[in-house]
Amino acid sequence: MKIYVINGANLNLLGTREPEVYGSKTLADINAEIVEKFNGHELEFFQSNCEGAIIDKLHEARGSDGIILNAGAFTHYSYAIRDAIAAISAPVIEVHISNIYAREEFRHKSVLSEVCKGTICGLGSAGYLMAIEYLINRTET
Amino acid sequence: MKIYVINGANLNLLGTREPEVYGSKTLADINAEIVEKFNGHELEFFQSNCEGAIIDKLHEARGSDGIILNAGAFTHYSYAIRDAIAAISAPVIEVHISNIYAREEFRHKSVLSEVCKGTICGLGSAGYLMAIEYLINRTET
Amino acid sequence: MKIYVINGANLNLLGTREPEVYGSKTLADINAEIVEKFNGHELEFFQSNCEGAIIDKLHEARGSDGIILNAGAFTHYSYAIRDAIAAISAPVIEVHISNIYAREEFRHKSVLSEVCKGTICGLGSAGYLMAIEYLINRTET
Amino acid sequence: MKIYVINGANLNLLGTREPEVYGSKTLADINAEIVEKFNGHELEFFQSNCEGAIIDKLHEARGSDGIILNAGAFTHYSYAIRDAIAAISAPVIEVHISNIYAREEFRHKSVLSEVCKGTICGLGSAGYLMAIEYLINRTET
Amino acid sequence: MKIYVINGANLNLLGTREPEVYGSKTLADINAEIVEKFNGHELEFFQSNCEGAIIDKLHEARGSDGIILNAGAFTHYSYAIRDAIAAISAPVIEVHISNIYAREEFRHKSVLSEVCKGTICGLGSAGYLMAIEYLINRTET
Amino acid sequence: MKIYVINGANLNLLGTREPEVYGSKTLADINAEIVEKFNGHELEFFQSNCEGAIIDKLHEARGSDGIILNAGAFTHYSYAIRDAIAAISAPVIEVHISNIYAREEFRHKSVLSEVCKGTICGLGSAGYLMAIEYLINRTET
Amino acid sequence: MKIYVINGANLNLLGTREPEVYGSKTLADINAEIVEKFNGHELEFFQSNCEGAIIDKLHEARGSDGIILNAGAFTHYSYAIRDAIAAISAPVIEVHISNIYAREEFRHKSVLSEVCKGTICGLGSAGYLMAIEYLINRTET
Amino acid sequence: MKIYVINGANLNLLGTREPEVYGSKTLADINAEIVEKFNGHELEFFQSNCEGAIIDKLHEARGSDGIILNAGAFTHYSYAIRDAIAAISAPVIEVHISNIYAREEFRHKSVLSEVCKGTICGLGSAGYLMAIEYLINRTET
Amino acid sequence: MKIYVINGANLNLLGTREPEVYGSKTLADINAEIVEKFNGHELEFFQSNCEGAIIDKLHEARGSDGIILNAGAFTHYSYAIRDAIAAISAPVIEVHISNIYAREEFRHKSVLSEVCKGTICGLGSAGYLMAIEYLINRTET
Amino acid sequence: MKIYVINGANLNLLGTREPEVYGSKTLADINAEIVEKFNGHELEFFQSNCEGAIIDKLHEARGSDGIILNAGAFTHYSYAIRDAIAAISAPVIEVHISNIYAREEFRHKSVLSEVCKGTICGLGSAGYLMAIEYLINRTET
Amino acid sequence: MKIYVINGANLNLLGTREPEVYGSKTLADINAEIVEKFNGHELEFFQSNCEGAIIDKLHEARGSDGIILNAGAFTHYSYAIRDAIAAISAPVIEVHISNIYAREEFRHKSVLSEVCKGTICGLGSAGYLMAIEYLINRTET
Amino acid sequence: MKIYVINGANLNLLGTREPEVYGSKTLADINAEIVEKFNGHELEFFQSNCEGAIIDKLHEARGSDGIILNAGAFTHYSYAIRDAIAAISAPVIEVHISNIYAREEFRHKSVLSEVCKGTICGLGSAGYLMAIEYLINRTET
Repeated sequence: MKIYVINGANLNLLGTREPEVYGSKTLADINAEIVEKFNGHELEFFQSNCEGAIIDKLHEARGSDGIILNAGAFTHYSYAIRDAIAAISAPVIEVHISNIYAREEFRHKSVLSEVCKGTICGLGSAGYLMAIEYLINRTET
Repeated sequence: MKIYVINGANLNLLGTREPEVYGSKTLADINAEIVEKFNGHELEFFQSNCEGAIIDKLHEARGSDGIILNAGAFTHYSYAIRDAIAAISAPVIEVHISNIYAREEFRHKSVLSEVCKGTICGLGSAGYLMAIEYLINRTET
Repeated sequence: MKIYVINGANLNLLGTREPEVYGSKTLADINAEIVEKFNGHELEFFQSNCEGAIIDKLHEARGSDGIILNAGAFTHYSYAIRDAIAAISAPVIEVHISNIYAREEFRHKSVLSEVCKGTICGLGSAGYLMAIEYLINRTET
Repeated sequence: MKIYVINGANLNLLGTREPEVYGSKTLADINAEIVEKFNGHELEFFQSNCEGAIIDKLHEARGSDGIILNAGAFTHYSYAIRDAIAAISAPVIEVHISNIYAREEFRHKSVLSEVCKGTICGLGSAGYLMAIEYLINRTET
Repeated sequence: MKIYVINGANLNLLGTREPEVYGSKTLADINAEIVEKFNGHELEFFQSNCEGAIIDKLHEARGSDGIILNAGAFTHYSYAIRDAIAAISAPVIEVHISNIYAREEFRHKSVLSEVCKGTICGLGSAGYLMAIEYLINRTET
Repeated sequence: MKIYVINGANLNLLGTREPEVYGSKTLADINAEIVEKFNGHELEFFQSNCEGAIIDKLHEARGSDGIILNAGAFTHYSYAIRDAIAAISAPVIEVHISNIYAREEFRHKSVLSEVCKGTICGLGSAGYLMAIEYLINRTET
Repeated sequence: MKIYVINGANLNLLGTREPEVYGSKTLADINAEIVEKFNGHELEFFQSNCEGAIIDKLHEARGSDGIILNAGAFTHYSYAIRDAIAAISAPVIEVHISNIYAREEFRHKSVLSEVCKGTICGLGSAGYLMAIEYLINRTET
Repeated sequence: MKIYVINGANLNLLGTREPEVYGSKTLADINAEIVEKFNGHELEFFQSNCEGAIIDKLHEARGSDGIILNAGAFTHYSYAIRDAIAAISAPVIEVHISNIYAREEFRHKSVLSEVCKGTICGLGSAGYLMAIEYLINRTET
Repeated sequence: MKIYVINGANLNLLGTREPEVYGSKTLADINAEIVEKFNGHELEFFQSNCEGAIIDKLHEARGSDGIILNAGAFTHYSYAIRDAIAAISAPVIEVHISNIYAREEFRHKSVLSEVCKGTICGLGSAGYLMAIEYLINRTET
Repeated sequence: MKIYVINGANLNLLGTREPEVYGSKTLADINAEIVEKFNGHELEFFQSNCEGAIIDKLHEARGSDGIILNAGAFTHYSYAIRDAIAAISAPVIEVHISNIYAREEFRHKSVLSEVCKGTICGLGSAGYLMAIEYLINRTET
Repeated sequence: MKIYVINGANLNLLGTREPEVYGSKTLADINAEIVEKFNGHELEFFQSNCEGAIIDKLHEARGSDGIILNAGAFTHYSYAIRDAIAAISAPVIEVHISNIYAREEFRHKSVLSEVCKGTICGLGSAGYLMAIEYLINRTET
Repeated sequence: MKIYVINGANLNLLGTREPEVYGSKTLADINAEIVEKFNGHELEFFQSNCEGAIIDKLHEARGSDGIILNAGAFTHYSYAIRDAIAAISAPVIEVHISNIYAREEFRHKSVLSEVCKGTICGLGSAGYLMAIEYLINRTET
């Protein structure tokens, strides 16, 4: 069982970036929590500020058991990432740490949600863990 | 620890209503799964097709440890339910069984999300379980 | 053969409410005309100013031969009634006494029409009779 | 008593054009049904793909007892046909075979409805019959 | 002389709900102030979170000398309440405790104002008193 | 010196059509006034309810000294007539008998104005006379 | 205690201008009523058709106990008056004689309301009296 | 017979301001032409860059036989000038030298047209002459 | 093998109409080029400024091997032509001589494209040749 | 070398008006800084809350070497000031003390920018100094 | 003669990605067809999921005889690619394999078309061949 | 003191790209001017056509004394660059060489401005120099 955890633009700054919005955990902290909780599973972590690199990684992951994707601000305009999700068969769960609907207007629209399996939003770093657990349960059932 | 699970308009028809969208489990089935998984916790279940009854129930739940709310179609226009959520201190997690962003345009906008703690959408009845687990973990930490 | 005739908000005031728009017949008058014309058929009449009660009645009517629905102002925003119509298999004919397209802008949009079988609008109380006759002919053919 | 039945653009293809939407009856079939049912009344049938010809016919019909108009796609943009309807005193009933509200977005708006007496939509070819019956009853009362 | 004071969704929580917006007086406090100031007049108080109950009450009040209505969030979408106001002859004064134009975008639009006699907004609980005084003066002149 | 006076949809009904809006003069009356006032000039009158016929006539008039065009409702959507005006070198003066800005919303927008020389609107049948006089003065200067 | 009563564009024509909308009292009549009712208080009356003069007067009034402002049509577009209100500390009550929500679309939006203390609308000249009384009560409490 | 010719913002620069759009005649030139042509009539000329001064002048002119108004850019947003026109009984003819529909988008909308008698647009300084002639003919008839 | 080449409004003026946009070839020149290049195929040429005539021709062509359609300005609003294309089985290729996306805003939207097989735009008269070649290759493969 | 520094509505209140937005310097302070820095140049300072006075001043400045314009809230709707800028040949630099893009939605749009030479926004009172320096450098080069 | 064939986001998945939309040919297949057909010409093929890499390649190609560009989803939002096309002199032909106007709403708008020479859309992989042939003919003529 | 000068998409073509819009200086010329004027300061220059590389560079610059950013067309849609600016503490000054408000509609909106310190637009390459001088003055004060 292999699961990808892909983070997009500016998520490498987690922990220092607006901690009142995103919390004080770094991306490394979150990834460590994930590894600890799901240590019997094959996990691959990826972060990039480059839209093209995220698309390439989604293509690479297309035969996997599932993908957790927090695309950061790309969420709101990258139809190219959207097409990448639609083009692959692996299920993608969209995760947002903050409640994007309680923030600026432009964050209320995700161009990715329509082609994802589902979305978890506003539940902090727990969202990543819940999404992975969902994928594992889903596959095992 | 007390948690409310509130379902809105037409969710009493789950299982028979458009099963290709909502799955074949009835609301009773889902509630039974919840009871089984969280049997050490106090849970109250409520469903109504009446917006006013849901507001009354949210008011009643205002001192609880948390609320799971799937408001059905009220999600898209009930500013009165939104105000009820904003008026109480208990955290509310919004749940949708289907991926509302992959359906009709009018379902893409939730007027509730802004005042909820977070949203889980598109993950089927598992969304209820995940939301309750989140509330329990949150309280216990 | 069983047919429901469901009227929504403020239609209990027919006859006294803006008679230049809605005519001088009361709802009781209209229902009496219906009973007289279709006296061999089972007919159930229902009126409520409560959206939830209308949804409950639509659920109850879901195994019937058809439903005539004049939802009043709910027509223009009740996605919950829309979902109720979509969730049941009985055909629903939407009726409006006045020509809603010749009145205020907000009345030009029905959120129900998409999921109804058809619409009769602007033909006064005759619209109810025509809709019932259509349902009967349809079933008998 | 004289009634006009006017059909607009592409309705000459009825029966062969998208039968899953419009049914398999030809326009000749429908007109024959009408003649059969209302054989004591003077009926004039007209179909044209030319907006100007329809306007001319509406002008010609202006002293008649009523007009049944299915303008086809002209419904959605022909303000010239709208003005023709407004300019004459004969009552016009707008008929649509399919449920235009359950189809493409552009079909949801009729620029004619505001100036017609009323609308029957989505009830198939029965809509023509019902509309004529309405006009006859209205005149005879 | 009989006057109705009708409050809508969530106004039963006044005093505890966002006191920085709505002040610390409860609805009972406000009603007591009204009774004290207008003790020679017949007053009926009503609050409900159910749109249908408010419509029913408006119908009941239709022969009264006037109605003070704070519909809460129903203000922004309940065309059914709007129709109820339009259907009755008693004058309705719309009152809002907070300045709805200084809050969220969705609160800037009242669908009720057009059919009310007038509106008092942003002047706290004093708005109720002023509205009643207006109705009394109006009737006595 | 040759000038065309072209009238579009429904203007053949002038005098009988909504006289409170368009006045009681027939199109023949107006044309007679024009002939009387400008009797030393070559004038050609044309009216059609067919958009294509108007385009053909505009093409025919392309070498003339000017065109007076009241396109009726085609004014608001006929980009084909617009293109015909843009394609020819003769100056076109747009005339409207009624004040189109004081009527329905859809009449506030002319798709023709941008490519006409100028517009005279709301001044009744005098608008035709003024427009012709303008063309004559312009040519003679 | 000093209160300013400021009236904007065209309010000098009160009494002669559209009396069916604005009533038959002149501005002098209204001001006289105010003086009579509040004769122990310092009142300053000002009317201008010039936006700049109103801004200057608002600046002058900035240390007063309150301002009653009926800005006339400036209400709907003068962001400069809005900024003047926001820039001063004296409370401003917005008053409209007619119900602006029951008139043309452009009158439904006030760009001033957001920065005023509150609004009284549709209650005729009584609105001025009520607003002044509110300011006096507010200060005295 | 008295007629006012009122010009608004920036029209004092006519002749030097963008002559390819507005022509090379100064406002004095145009006024001189008017005086020459209509020398038996009482004419008053007024130009101001101040909206308030134009409103005052419109009020002053309210008993006259008519007003020619080229409000310049005020045309597109001054609801205060609009109200002044609506408040007076003298007929107002709106004139624009250039074709405002062939220029920037914001010039396509006049907020004044609805309350004017009519509009002449794009016919250069001849528009003023034609409008005055119209007023004279209208009065004399 | 039979192919129709249908041109709409104003294309009869090609060569003289705005040659900087449309080039200096006449429609006859273009048709001659087509005949020369595809001389072994049955070709039918048609041009009309009348929307209805184009619809009739599309109906006539419904059993052909394909249709090249440059509808001129009808492209942007003729839902009736759109319905004609959708109603027939022959493939339609939409051709535009100029790049409609580099021109006025209203030309950016084609209401026909959705129901055509494909579109060739901006490549001058070569677009016709390419479209025909495509149809021939498609049939022969 | 002569440069005008023109300030619009409410800028006379600088220093006391919302100092957290506009800083604590008065307009006199800013003008003194300008005089000190550019003391070899002819400078004229002007402030008015009256749109018309600003237009008059812009006309007066039309032969100068340049104009610094902070129009205050007129920035967002005064098409008359825009036309004044377009009508004169002197270059105009638009200055805003605060970052208008980080404030209310209505401040995000300047109707003046299109016809100004350039804009400096959000850099406090330094913006005036930078703009003047730019004009001097530009002229001297 | 040198021609570039540039493909954007997700086009490397052609053949496996939604074959019912894009067909079963891989990008390698299409490129091979191109090479075969135009073997006497210098051709350079490039595909990238990275917007920046495509811009770099467009810059590199700026002295070539032409460019075929299928930008994938970048078509709908990459103003940076648009600027790159506008910045170079080589003609760019936009190609889309599927009919983008018959798919999701967001695909109906290309931000690139305005600055391309022309567009070929919906004709499958033949579009590439036709575009190259057009460029060759154009250069050779 | 360290300052970054970051240029985005297509700015590497400065001097050759549309020189009538952007001037004839190359980016190297501009950078040389900067170095010459501010030679006592540490300056880092960066240009990329890749959004991701610009985000990386902004992250790298987050402890610097300030950043000059001309993001090119990314300005209009890159919410990812916006988030990068918001995530770092160094002040960012947005610079545009041309007046973006006098060009195409899509350039009128910057998604970056809200989170930048300020903007300088339309002043050519001088904008870079002014922005750097501002940062130096700001730090030194």
